[in-house]
Amino acid sequence: MRQKNMLIPTLRNVGAEAEMVSHRLMLRAGMIRQLAAGVYTYLPLAYRTLRKVEQIVREEMDRIGAQELLLPAINPAELWQESGRWDDYGPELIHFQDRHERDFLLGPTHEEVITDLVRNEVNSYKKLPMTLYQIQTKYRDERRPRSGLLRGREFLMKDAYSFHVDWESLDKTYRDMYQAYIRIFTRLGLDFRAVEADSGAMGGEENHEFMVLSDSGEDTLALCSSCQYAANVETAKVGRDETKAPDMAEVPKPEKLSTPGASTIDEVIQMLDKQPEQLIKSLLFTVDGDPVLVLVRGDHEVNEIKVKQALGAETCHLADDQTVNRVTGAPTGFAGPLGLKEAVRVVADHAVYEMAEAVTGANEADAHLLHVAPGRDFQVDLYADIRTVQEGDACPHCGEPIRFAKGIEVGHVFKLGTRYSDSMNATFLDQEGKEGRLIMGCYGIGISRLVAATVEQSHDDNGIIWPVGAAPYHVHLIAVNLKDETQSRLADQLYERLRADGVEVLYDNRQDRAGVKFKDSDLLGIPLRITVGKTAAEGKVEYKFRRSGKSGTLTTEELIKKLPDLLNRADQQQ
Amino acid sequence: MRQKNMLIPTLRNVGAEAEMVSHRLMLRAGMIRQLAAGVYTYLPLAYRTLRKVEQIVREEMDRIGAQELLLPAINPAELWQESGRWDDYGPELIHFQDRHERDFLLGPTHEEVITDLVRNEVNSYKKLPMTLYQIQTKYRDERRPRSGLLRGREFLMKDAYSFHVDWESLDKTYRDMYQAYIRIFTRLGLDFRAVEADSGAMGGEENHEFMVLSDSGEDTLALCSSCQYAANVETAKVGRDETKAPDMAEVPKPEKLSTPGASTIDEVIQMLDKQPEQLIKSLLFTVDGDPVLVLVRGDHEVNEIKVKQALGAETCHLADDQTVNRVTGAPTGFAGPLGLKEAVRVVADHAVYEMAEAVTGANEADAHLLHVAPGRDFQVDLYADIRTVQEGDACPHCGEPIRFAKGIEVGHVFKLGTRYSDSMNATFLDQEGKEGRLIMGCYGIGISRLVAATVEQSHDDNGIIWPVGAAPYHVHLIAVNLKDETQSRLADQLYERLRADGVEVLYDNRQDRAGVKFKDSDLLGIPLRITVGKTAAEGKVEYKFRRSGKSGTLTTEELIKKLPDLLNRADQQQ
Repeated sequence: MRQKNMLIPTLRNVGAEAEMVSHRLMLRAGMIRQLAAGVYTYLPLAYRTLRKVEQIVREEMDRIGAQELLLPAINPAELWQESGRWDDYGPELIHFQDRHERDFLLGPTHEEVITDLVRNEVNSYKKLPMTLYQIQTKYRDERRPRSGLLRGREFLMKDAYSFHVDWESLDKTYRDMYQAYIRIFTRLGLDFRAVEADSGAMGGEENHEFMVLSDSGEDTLALCSSCQYAANVETAKVGRDETKAPDMAEVPKPEKLSTPGASTIDEVIQMLDKQPEQLIKSLLFTVDGDPVLVLVRGDHEVNEIKVKQALGAETCHLADDQTVNRVTGAPTGFAGPLGLKEAVRVVADHAVYEMAEAVTGANEADAHLLHVAPGRDFQVDLYADIRTVQEGDACPHCGEPIRFAKGIEVGHVFKLGTRYSDSMNATFLDQEGKEGRLIMGCYGIGISRLVAATVEQSHDDNGIIWPVGAAPYHVHLIAVNLKDETQSRLADQLYERLRADGVEVLYDNRQDRAGVKFKDSDLLGIPLRITVGKTAAEGKVEYKFRRSGKSGTLTTEELIKKLPDLLNRADQQQ
Repeated sequence: MRQKNMLIPTLRNVGAEAEMVSHRLMLRAGMIRQLAAGVYTYLPLAYRTLRKVEQIVREEMDRIGAQELLLPAINPAELWQESGRWDDYGPELIHFQDRHERDFLLGPTHEEVITDLVRNEVNSYKKLPMTLYQIQTKYRDERRPRSGLLRGREFLMKDAYSFHVDWESLDKTYRDMYQAYIRIFTRLGLDFRAVEADSGAMGGEENHEFMVLSDSGEDTLALCSSCQYAANVETAKVGRDETKAPDMAEVPKPEKLSTPGASTIDEVIQMLDKQPEQLIKSLLFTVDGDPVLVLVRGDHEVNEIKVKQALGAETCHLADDQTVNRVTGAPTGFAGPLGLKEAVRVVADHAVYEMAEAVTGANEADAHLLHVAPGRDFQVDLYADIRTVQEGDACPHCGEPIRFAKGIEVGHVFKLGTRYSDSMNATFLDQEGKEGRLIMGCYGIGISRLVAATVEQSHDDNGIIWPVGAAPYHVHLIAVNLKDETQSRLADQLYERLRADGVEVLYDNRQDRAGVKFKDSDLLGIPLRITVGKTAAEGKVEYKFRRSGKSGTLTTEELIKKLPDLLNRADQQQ
């Protein structure tokens, strides 16, 4: 395309309200414009990138046998009343009445509509499993839509739904979908991780989030420095070596020390000249209504989600002061496993098991115990992984050190089970003619969010650096001085030749200064730049990779021959 | 694709509420399902067809240099208040408030948003002309959305907008767009006409409607039986030969006859034993407040739109009885051009000029005049084309006979001029740095409507007949008996071979009776059917064109060789 005629309104600066890098850069590169809070126009360059991403997603969905359809954005309220979400979804739901005063909403997601479709149209096991997907504009009235395409009120999604006769079948499709997501994000040239996500709040079934790594991400991830293990820090497992029972032979008996006012770990270690890892932190929780004493090493943090999982509990929170007083006989800050006033369950982290002796609270105000040996001096009902992972902890898969990174969620695969088929009575007839509830999975990718996440991950001070897979064009052709007839003729010829070869080329044929063109070119971030300048007289042009900055000079014939190879190298860092 | 796993829920019957053929057939073919009145799910087959149409539209838009972008469906009320349409658009506008009680609407069309974008981003003649388009879901709360995809409340549109410094530039883009539309509908294999539309109501600028010919169409068109001339009957011009002044030498003087009670053409011709074409119909109109006598031949109808155009008037309607009485001195039904009580303008159709003598009203109750010679006995202020075209009239372009046909509007090209740039103050700086108002055009195609119109035009009693350009698949492969191992193996092999060759093939691999498969196949309407049956043992298969019904037998090798040729013949009627 000839840039002169295109709507690419680049900007030198944008207002301070654009906080995220992707928001600022996409505004500056003339890719998006805001029409209302969280509502954006995709200008031609952005739309090309959107469609590239769409096409990759579509190909990978088709490859695993998913069928594309298109559900209406307008949803009748009745379906959402049936599932219970009309009342539960909250103020993010955009709703309206039609001219007959019937209630409708704009779909933020389509479980209800697809479940209604499948319960009406698919009634036999013969048609199952079936995976349906769509690429569609979605609506969500975000409270603070201020991050450009990362959090819009009108945004583009790929949402897929699968239907099964049993869990084994769901498992298979889930794995296929997981692999398809891996391929999609890989083809887009992204550094990403599939992350085990907390399944508690959403119904208890297995699910993974796909995270693009970026310092601006809202989520903190625990990543293995060696293998592919990745998890949200809130749920990441802590790996451990084969557990060794410690040698307690030399440990003296517990000894009470006065620790006036020292109710925190920091105060205790200072007063007693200890290291945090020599302490046991004893916290009283109320789990499903009952008090439970939870023990972790002094340098570790209790993870309530894990405590709940370990105990198979529904609720879990720190006990109030009154309960602490009643159970331990001491004010909060001096609890310990020895000498409790009430018998309660004691749950300890695996790291506690490996301690030969520790400092603990004495269940008495202003006092701690030295030389407390777990197992010898008190009984533990359950050892489990109940602490939050830390950087340097062992990977639960391979044992190598865990590191932390920030991530942006761009995809989610989720085993829904019968959440919707139960509430909406979606059934099928099995081989024996018996009625069964459909087992479901759902799988989303935020297409427009993904584009923004790509920019968050891939840019420098001068602008965007598109991976080839998502780039609006592959080649940016620039003539330094169009008034120079040799340059202008060579650039025109090269443009026509590249177009004829099917190369996606943007040709900056504007009568602007070279400096403006190069600045814009860096900003737009097209992977390979070809410059027609002074060497045009020798029939030579310069190529330069946007990512690595590497460059070289070639005749136009060499360039055309080497172009596929150059594009293959465009995503290389060096 | 293997049909067994696909969501193609065909139906033998559908309810009576589906009145239009396209609605019934698309429901029966498992292509669409209604979610709410005028709100449809596009199932996989329909979605494939939609995307085919989209792609053709996109290619032809790109070919004329239009740039694709995507505007938000959510429009802030402020922009529509600025253009005046927030109040004027009426109950078809779907609107809602966000969580902060701000007013928004769902765009039924996007003149406001695109004008806002261009006034903000394009301010120099250097960037003009510019044509922008999008393919997008639109919303219109139709009062009676009962025709399937022909009139939905949520539907798919291509809308394009062009911006110009002057009318000459708009004319050029308008012509380009017109030609692009011709190519689009031709590639889709449609029988269509570009029709001069009434420009009065919408602002007075040139515009054309593109009509797919179909007996179920809402519009009546006047088509030339020879050339490409087509117009809405309301505005179609009447062609005429070189005007001949009639010979009045032998015409006797006017003679009054008593015609008691004969106030209509039918009554007069019966009483006087004349033909309608021997009468002049004299009707008194009120045009911009003044009485005007309008004359047409007895077998013709006055066209008020044309009267208005001929007189450059704003309003035009039949005069009331009181005015008729005052001006003619007679009750309604006996008016004539001779002996009026008041001098009024007289406008006559061209056909009146060619009459040597005629019967007219006598401006007296129960009386008519014989031997009235126009020009001799009364003066005509203006001869013009003021009658509605009739079948058999001469084409205004080539003189051949006009025929009537019904049409479904699927596209519209329109010169907007400054309708929106005036109200929204959209300006640019010209070469001298002077500010000018942007001149605009707009160009729509109803993508989902087009799919339905294709079915309206192209079907038979057994189902849809897809033109190759819009067909969800090109080839429908059917194995008559999958339990027969020879058939099953050959069908499987052929399917894989066709897929490998990139042929779009739907393979009916269901374990159903052959009759069911053939019935479904006719219903789905895929252009070329290939049947693997008893001749499989000889390595032979049958092909059959859905449209012409022609068939033949080929070895699979011959079939593969001839497939491109067969697909080229699939749209032939015979």
